Amino acid sequence: MTLYEQFAQELKEQISQAYYPVGQKLPSIREMSKARGVSISTVQESYRLLEDAGFVRSKLKSGYYVQQPPSTAQLPETSQPEQRPVPIDNWQAVLELMMTESNSHFLALGRGSPDTELSSLKPLQRLLSDNIKYQSKQVFSCSKGNGLFKLRVQIARLMQNSGCHIHPDNIQITAGCQEALSLSLKALTQPGDIVAIDSPNFYGSMQAIQSNQLKVIEIPTHPETGISLPALELALEQWPIKVLQLIPTSNNPLGYVMPEKNKLKLLKMAEKYDFAIIEDDILGDGYYQTPRPRSLKSYDSQDRVLFCSSFSKTIAPGLRVGWVAPGRYGQMLTHLKFVTSLGANSLPLLAVADFIEQGHYEKHLRLAKQQYQARRDLMLHWVQRYFPSGSKMSFPKGGFFLWVELPESIDSLVLNENLKPFNIGIAAGSLFSAAGKYQNCLRISYANKPSERIEQAIKIVGEQAKILLQQALARA
Amino acid sequence: MTLYEQFAQELKEQISQAYYPVGQKLPSIREMSKARGVSISTVQESYRLLEDAGFVRSKLKSGYYVQQPPSTAQLPETSQPEQRPVPIDNWQAVLELMMTESNSHFLALGRGSPDTELSSLKPLQRLLSDNIKYQSKQVFSCSKGNGLFKLRVQIARLMQNSGCHIHPDNIQITAGCQEALSLSLKALTQPGDIVAIDSPNFYGSMQAIQSNQLKVIEIPTHPETGISLPALELALEQWPIKVLQLIPTSNNPLGYVMPEKNKLKLLKMAEKYDFAIIEDDILGDGYYQTPRPRSLKSYDSQDRVLFCSSFSKTIAPGLRVGWVAPGRYGQMLTHLKFVTSLGANSLPLLAVADFIEQGHYEKHLRLAKQQYQARRDLMLHWVQRYFPSGSKMSFPKGGFFLWVELPESIDSLVLNENLKPFNIGIAAGSLFSAAGKYQNCLRISYANKPSERIEQAIKIVGEQAKILLQQALARA
Ligand SMILES: Cc1ncc(COP(=O)(O)O)c(C=O)c1O
Ligand SMILES: Cc1ncc(COP(=O)(O)O)c(C=O)c1O
Repeated sequence: MTLYEQFAQELKEQISQAYYPVGQKLPSIREMSKARGVSISTVQESYRLLEDAGFVRSKLKSGYYVQQPPSTAQLPETSQPEQRPVPIDNWQAVLELMMTESNSHFLALGRGSPDTELSSLKPLQRLLSDNIKYQSKQVFSCSKGNGLFKLRVQIARLMQNSGCHIHPDNIQITAGCQEALSLSLKALTQPGDIVAIDSPNFYGSMQAIQSNQLKVIEIPTHPETGISLPALELALEQWPIKVLQLIPTSNNPLGYVMPEKNKLKLLKMAEKYDFAIIEDDILGDGYYQTPRPRSLKSYDSQDRVLFCSSFSKTIAPGLRVGWVAPGRYGQMLTHLKFVTSLGANSLPLLAVADFIEQGHYEKHLRLAKQQYQARRDLMLHWVQRYFPSGSKMSFPKGGFFLWVELPESIDSLVLNENLKPFNIGIAAGSLFSAAGKYQNCLRISYANKPSERIEQAIKIVGEQAKILLQQALARA
Repeated sequence: MTLYEQFAQELKEQISQAYYPVGQKLPSIREMSKARGVSISTVQESYRLLEDAGFVRSKLKSGYYVQQPPSTAQLPETSQPEQRPVPIDNWQAVLELMMTESNSHFLALGRGSPDTELSSLKPLQRLLSDNIKYQSKQVFSCSKGNGLFKLRVQIARLMQNSGCHIHPDNIQITAGCQEALSLSLKALTQPGDIVAIDSPNFYGSMQAIQSNQLKVIEIPTHPETGISLPALELALEQWPIKVLQLIPTSNNPLGYVMPEKNKLKLLKMAEKYDFAIIEDDILGDGYYQTPRPRSLKSYDSQDRVLFCSSFSKTIAPGLRVGWVAPGRYGQMLTHLKFVTSLGANSLPLLAVADFIEQGHYEKHLRLAKQQYQARRDLMLHWVQRYFPSGSKMSFPKGGFFLWVELPESIDSLVLNENLKPFNIGIAAGSLFSAAGKYQNCLRISYANKPSERIEQAIKIVGEQAKILLQQALARA
């Protein structure tokens, strides 16, 4: 254990003992260094460790604040999905989740949209209006080929934050990340091919895999470190896997970030077993700390990674602005984009390009991430308080999704049914599996501004879960 | 010959002899009836015939005006495409056409966009801005499932004009007509299947067919009456054709309208040979006269027709608002829409719904059609004047595309190359064929406001065509 690890451990214990209570500011780095007689850099490093572990949160220009330590909640185990290629068939449940909107009557706790009411999005409204007024000719015409150049320039610039140095001409604009994923799959596969994924996985990707008549094999995945590389290798030895599709940074639904060394190992494996990787980075910029982790694409010396993303989670899903950095598949992607939808609505491309160029994106992202991190802690607090004991939960490092594993006897589809009379919905775990796993899990979004209504809803979810648990015990 | 046909014939001759000069108003129906001693209804019917034949044009609440009679130009013959399934491969040429934009330096005569500078589009700009201001929450969220209900209501209402009575829930919103076509193909076919099309055909549809790994068989098509039903039947007897895809109303590129009785016959044939029909109606509302012709879908008692359309030609392609009325394939289409792009950008859906609901669409369409009809006549005039003698041309009944057949020895791809130094582009005929036919043909758009620049460009195209013709003669 290094000195700073040791010092961080000490501080953790003191926080748990409420020596430093939740909500209070830690002494400044300088003060702490003086008080404890350790070097500035040791304090710095240990504060960073505490932040990584979720014990403190840094506020811009203000310092480190103690927060509800996450350690009292147990993480779920590494997932244990089916170890063979399976078909996917839960479209009806996906459709139902997708069509439930939060409104004054119904609270859709499972939905995946970001908070679009943050003040930092205001400039975007103005930019949309300005472009309608001053660029009407361009707004009325379709953006063809690989899409509006000035947006691709901004995207190329943003991608540098994840360590990618890509020319704007090697970026293809798409209608959201979903189109990026779907076109990438189409470029890489033939019907019948096998695609491996981390599991649990976003239901939209799985439906795209299914509709391309592909088979999917789900790889065991750890809630903190992501896809299990030994398990992946085992699968690669057994099956002719053509593509690996995964969400390595601020994963949906687990919130994990794959460690750098795993990313490097994975690329070596891709070389050895000759498969392509579709990297879904939709929440990559939503990683709470700065700098964000590097992408798989940034290590991709062999041009095997198709990097897919969008502004649906960082700005708003209604824009339908996404992209793919398709490497050697560039020309094919441009063709596939043309045949599937000809081109893009120009207005959001113009406005988003301006939004980034004028610095609003980075400002917005900063505010949004601060909010989401605080909302994560509050949500963890509520879930721990109201859910049945024995519930396990993820500790997301970015994004706004919490994954909860309820005691085994609870079926979250039944739970969801029982919540309907209360006008509450959750995202049942089985949506995130090809083979109907994760029946006792659920995904909750904490994107929205915390409110008493949300706390009450979480309480009701907990109560209903407890009722199901008692019923199961009574039957046993 | 009926009395009114006879009377129309008489009037035609008198127009050709400048008895009624071009631009002048014909006597009113009442005056003409009195003057010639024929019944009101006979005059009415014969005026309508004259209009159909392009000798006169009706102006709202004003009467019938004589125009440049089209009869001096010869129509192309029925097309003679390859009579077997062929692969499609001219993507590079399509890409090139697609990426050429008209600007102050370059005049893209072949491009397919409508005139978006008509004053009747102004309200749409306001509606877009209003929705950003007052519906920001909806604008920022993605329109999922089969799409914004209030837009589907308006579309269902518009479809009544083509004789279709369809419930809004049986309409799927898509990103333009291209997505509608592409998803329909995906719903109906498996790789290797054969699709029949009218020919020449829109290159976008053909590329979609190709990317779905389908084979295409092009059916001979007449420039006034459309796809040849005897030729289609011959093909049906020979090949297991799964789908027929065609543009029966205000066809692109020929401008034809399939006669009603052919539409009925075609549906009988679909029953007999058990195939589905993808009806591309993108220019159906662009038929110059009112009421517009009925759609195939309106006769579809067997639920075999997938009706695809968009507002790309009637409002603006940049909106990317299209739809499909998929009949029994509804659920499948909703699923395919989800997997390919999740949902739609809500803003244009909201604004277009308002635009139609508030009556702006019908006003705009009236103005646009009037303009296009007048621009057709002028374009026909220019082409007849400047192109080599022996050139044949279509006589479009709607839309804004003219199809020109040059003397056989002229290759329009070479012509297009030779036009580049003049900063002029045309759409080469071979783009509209799967098997490289129509080399001596080209498509010209007359959507834009006539100008001296355009007339000069047409003159240059004619001169360059004449040069190619002379070179060919010299070689012979
Ligand atoms: C992991 C992941 N990938 C892709 C998507 C699709 O995003 P988009 O709205 O950009 O198409 C989502 C949306 O929920 C997602 O969570
Ligand atoms: C006949 C035809 N169908 C479909 C399309 C695609 O239209 P959209 O822009 O609505 O995708 C076009 C566009 O040029 C077309 O001419």
